[in-house]
Amino acid sequence: MNGSSASGKIRVGILGATGYTARELIRVLLRHPGVEITTLTSRQEGSPHIATVHPQFAGRLDLALERLGAIQVAAKTDCVFSCLPHGASAAVVSQIVATGTRVVDFSADYRLSSLVQYQAWYGEKHPDADRLGHVAYGLPELFREEIRPAPLVANPGCYPTAVILALAPLLRENAIDPASIIVDAKSGLSGAGRTPKLTTHFVEANECLTAYSVGRHRHQPEMEDVLRRATGTAPSILFTPHLVPMDRGILATIYVTPRDTTRSEDEWLDWLEAQYEDAPFVTVVEHLPATKDTVNSNYCHLTIRKVRDRLIVFAAIDNLGKGASGAAVQNMNVMFGLPETLAL
Amino acid sequence: MNGSSASGKIRVGILGATGYTARELIRVLLRHPGVEITTLTSRQEGSPHIATVHPQFAGRLDLALERLGAIQVAAKTDCVFSCLPHGASAAVVSQIVATGTRVVDFSADYRLSSLVQYQAWYGEKHPDADRLGHVAYGLPELFREEIRPAPLVANPGCYPTAVILALAPLLRENAIDPASIIVDAKSGLSGAGRTPKLTTHFVEANECLTAYSVGRHRHQPEMEDVLRRATGTAPSILFTPHLVPMDRGILATIYVTPRDTTRSEDEWLDWLEAQYEDAPFVTVVEHLPATKDTVNSNYCHLTIRKVRDRLIVFAAIDNLGKGASGAAVQNMNVMFGLPETLAL
Amino acid sequence: MNGSSASGKIRVGILGATGYTARELIRVLLRHPGVEITTLTSRQEGSPHIATVHPQFAGRLDLALERLGAIQVAAKTDCVFSCLPHGASAAVVSQIVATGTRVVDFSADYRLSSLVQYQAWYGEKHPDADRLGHVAYGLPELFREEIRPAPLVANPGCYPTAVILALAPLLRENAIDPASIIVDAKSGLSGAGRTPKLTTHFVEANECLTAYSVGRHRHQPEMEDVLRRATGTAPSILFTPHLVPMDRGILATIYVTPRDTTRSEDEWLDWLEAQYEDAPFVTVVEHLPATKDTVNSNYCHLTIRKVRDRLIVFAAIDNLGKGASGAAVQNMNVMFGLPETLAL
Amino acid sequence: MNGSSASGKIRVGILGATGYTARELIRVLLRHPGVEITTLTSRQEGSPHIATVHPQFAGRLDLALERLGAIQVAAKTDCVFSCLPHGASAAVVSQIVATGTRVVDFSADYRLSSLVQYQAWYGEKHPDADRLGHVAYGLPELFREEIRPAPLVANPGCYPTAVILALAPLLRENAIDPASIIVDAKSGLSGAGRTPKLTTHFVEANECLTAYSVGRHRHQPEMEDVLRRATGTAPSILFTPHLVPMDRGILATIYVTPRDTTRSEDEWLDWLEAQYEDAPFVTVVEHLPATKDTVNSNYCHLTIRKVRDRLIVFAAIDNLGKGASGAAVQNMNVMFGLPETLAL
Repeated sequence: MNGSSASGKIRVGILGATGYTARELIRVLLRHPGVEITTLTSRQEGSPHIATVHPQFAGRLDLALERLGAIQVAAKTDCVFSCLPHGASAAVVSQIVATGTRVVDFSADYRLSSLVQYQAWYGEKHPDADRLGHVAYGLPELFREEIRPAPLVANPGCYPTAVILALAPLLRENAIDPASIIVDAKSGLSGAGRTPKLTTHFVEANECLTAYSVGRHRHQPEMEDVLRRATGTAPSILFTPHLVPMDRGILATIYVTPRDTTRSEDEWLDWLEAQYEDAPFVTVVEHLPATKDTVNSNYCHLTIRKVRDRLIVFAAIDNLGKGASGAAVQNMNVMFGLPETLAL
Repeated sequence: MNGSSASGKIRVGILGATGYTARELIRVLLRHPGVEITTLTSRQEGSPHIATVHPQFAGRLDLALERLGAIQVAAKTDCVFSCLPHGASAAVVSQIVATGTRVVDFSADYRLSSLVQYQAWYGEKHPDADRLGHVAYGLPELFREEIRPAPLVANPGCYPTAVILALAPLLRENAIDPASIIVDAKSGLSGAGRTPKLTTHFVEANECLTAYSVGRHRHQPEMEDVLRRATGTAPSILFTPHLVPMDRGILATIYVTPRDTTRSEDEWLDWLEAQYEDAPFVTVVEHLPATKDTVNSNYCHLTIRKVRDRLIVFAAIDNLGKGASGAAVQNMNVMFGLPETLAL
Repeated sequence: MNGSSASGKIRVGILGATGYTARELIRVLLRHPGVEITTLTSRQEGSPHIATVHPQFAGRLDLALERLGAIQVAAKTDCVFSCLPHGASAAVVSQIVATGTRVVDFSADYRLSSLVQYQAWYGEKHPDADRLGHVAYGLPELFREEIRPAPLVANPGCYPTAVILALAPLLRENAIDPASIIVDAKSGLSGAGRTPKLTTHFVEANECLTAYSVGRHRHQPEMEDVLRRATGTAPSILFTPHLVPMDRGILATIYVTPRDTTRSEDEWLDWLEAQYEDAPFVTVVEHLPATKDTVNSNYCHLTIRKVRDRLIVFAAIDNLGKGASGAAVQNMNVMFGLPETLAL
Repeated sequence: MNGSSASGKIRVGILGATGYTARELIRVLLRHPGVEITTLTSRQEGSPHIATVHPQFAGRLDLALERLGAIQVAAKTDCVFSCLPHGASAAVVSQIVATGTRVVDFSADYRLSSLVQYQAWYGEKHPDADRLGHVAYGLPELFREEIRPAPLVANPGCYPTAVILALAPLLRENAIDPASIIVDAKSGLSGAGRTPKLTTHFVEANECLTAYSVGRHRHQPEMEDVLRRATGTAPSILFTPHLVPMDRGILATIYVTPRDTTRSEDEWLDWLEAQYEDAPFVTVVEHLPATKDTVNSNYCHLTIRKVRDRLIVFAAIDNLGKGASGAAVQNMNVMFGLPETLAL
């Protein structure tokens, strides 16, 4: 942060603005009264106008995508959102943070607290390894006080957002067996990004359902690591993601074994609701949540069912909303002392 | 069976021909060289032509939907497929079977082996209760010898087909803990039938994913009962069905605890393949099965993964194919001594 | 308007709040800083909470749907949006307008300027016939000055919005043959409403494309009447609507014969852009517009192509946005002297 | 044709078997009793098994995709289907035809009758230019007698199939103004092929409708050329294709000006039906055709509406069925003296 906005607004930059999370972020920021988007970057040749990359912004945002270095971006911004891929992101983010501009990083680079885990799952040298373990995880429902003053916030993964919100209260109260957790999760295709490939080609993905990355999805260590940090209990999660033929939305169906089998379903629901009474974006519902009710919003719908002495927790979010760009704006609001729900 | 086809073909009737299973059945039968469709029934007024109800058959099948009694249908048929709803079906089917015409019943009326269970889950007096426990379950992969001479075959439910094919070999060999089974299943919307309602209204169901009937779906006792009959082991299944925004296809993701944790994933795959080497429609694949690869076919794709000492079995079928009308034709082929794969 | 909001905000009521246009309207109004929703009505029994009808509003709007008369609604509101069906709407709206509360009517009751046409196309006695011909048509791009002081605004139909925006400049300048117009329009399924029926049942409508109401859709006289009022030229439009398997979006492909065949495509584009330079929600684009770029917005994307001496005009909107609820809020903003783009 | 099948079946080869038309062709041929698939080719490295490219054929077809030359393929086949791209196809096809093996060519290489047109629209040197003007166009409804003895058949484009079937009778009888034709056509995404690109990426194409290639689609000269050859009248067609978010299906909405405005809609329908009474796959329906009723079939549904003294003709097909692979098998049946409808 090396200057100031004439308008008194937060000057925002977005790194890697060609993908879906950046697009959704711009959508939300365009209706945010406290923000001015000043800088968009991409690696594309020729500084294309944002509307050639995202035609929905024709006539709404008059900026080109530029190839700028970290210092150039920092000079024009108070807050930067990095939508760069992991590895690439930390290299740039670490330079920006050093200037005083604050950063919300969408990549996975700062989500894990341990270098060993990072290297095991991402297989690369970390460009800013010393910072691991000292970065706020951008789930205000669990880490609001750490986010508020943070120079850098690691924006959560989409699946972890749904799963951590569902499981954190149960683990925190030691209400379930942490070794018995099965997460069967389903996501719309925007979670797979904007780069064309056969698995996300319309005729392949439409009218089709399949699991993927079974036993080796990088969001599994993220869930386990963050839940341990948030609750003090280290869970073991069997995580199976599936691709569903829809644009947006995640539903996590989570099977756990409660320690106390005498509590009724209604009691579990009341208890869960109480856990989130101060969380404006987590809504405990009585019905089985539908992803569609959360799409284009920053809300998470949670419910709980008791069947044959097991609990099934359902969590629905928009993977691009609460699972990415909505959460990022929520984090920015917290970081800059704005009302947490502004523009959301 | 009170007459004979001049062509030497099996004379087929379909009861309740307005829905999706009947439509798919007609599609398959129209390319079956050994069959002549002679009779279609429905409760609709005015004997509408089949093409007014299913326009795809315009110019392909020249029959009206008639309101006929059991005896009238039996007089014109060698084989009847009943697509009537449960309760209504058994009342008619029992009369047809008595004439010697053989029946494949799509309803749930004869799937369970016990009247107590039927009444607990379907809540009604059974019109033909004495026959329960003596009807062949129409999964030739497990009950071929019973189906061959059967006057009446209970065509399996769609979810049970996928789940039973996945679990029967494991339970038969006592390879898994029968009390630890979790089935997270996902289905396209044709499984919900053709009667318009809000949950299946396009704008509600499209771009949406949700669970339903958690802990109270009628296919759960069917799976448990049939698996017990087929394997001698009574499993306990936690069954969670979901609606996926696509027309057809079921994927069952099944979590089990193996007794022997030393067997490798490849060994499990080889073993599973061996179990089905004589089943022309069950294909064990190495990749994670996609529902789309089974749609418009009578095939079931199965695979198995080993993660953290648990097994995850994946089964994909077309709910209207192997999960309903394909299976029905397969059963008819077995019952009438035709090649099992004919027209499939 | 019989009272005032303690907050200084416009007190808003919505009649018939169970459908899709009402739901979208609530979504937009919840982020409008100058509005407070005070009243929701429906004919449903038992005053259900809005979240039981539209679960997305769980935790976001705490109001019940009440069965209230016109006077009761008027007493609590400064502005009423009527989402009642045609016929029913005018009967209530006329009473509300008489109290001084201003109304935006989503129904077709006040869109046509002639009673004869109304009865020819809607086949009913009009409950407030004297007002026809004196109601502002809610397209600010053409009728802003009439809308500003209007006690009652007829919110446009979805297809007419796209088609009128595309054709008005051409007819106003006498640039095309008014008798040669062909409109081939395509709409997502939310345009067909929320009442379940076979044509909008998921498995019927999904993966399917069909025309409907050919030569007899009620939006055709609306287009012709409003274009005549706006331009002084009475066009004849051959209108063919189609249903497309998607939730939202309209694309109108419009074939016209220009009088001047020497003007180039680029000149037509420049000319069209100039026509709308003061319209914040009409964007002339160079590429072929995609409905998706306008969905969840109040924007209309227009372009023009010249092929073999004909012009093809393309107009894309969100049928629930600029085609219904976005336009309604835009109208309210104009009526109440707020910035036209507020919350949009 | 240099050998013979031991089984007496037609030995079939498919060139370029990795795409959607080849996949659909294999699906149909697998249930064809008179055919044995002996050879599949592709340019892929390492001779992958067909089931790794099209997993639906796991356990159903045991062949690898080989990189074979024309002579090698010809030696093992009586009939070859070429799914190679234009330009590449003619180079190989001309060599195969020279051996006596008969060919159905899916590419555009032999569809146009004039080299000038080919070069104008495809911009390339034609590898077998002398044959242009002497190749049967594979629409048996119009060219059955030419197809029967043909060594080489040009399989029609998908849009041309729908449009030519709709317009040929009208032009043949000189019933319409040939200069007034507007074709507004809509296609599912399989028509765009299997190569991933941004426009066919799921999240871009889903829930979206857009026109493309306006005024420059290569199927327009094909329609005009073939209609001229079939009817003796050279039409001028304004052709606007659109992409619809569904896998399969084409609907062509065709606007024409009849010469005789006294004929009623019912008379037009009867007349059209009479034109196709000998065509087993063309069904004139009274309702507005829905693409879904033709999908997975070789049928074309046609109807006609009269509105304001114009005619609107609607034609629905499956772009992969009657629009590609179904037609190809129909052509093969005609060429080899089999019943025209076999396996279709």
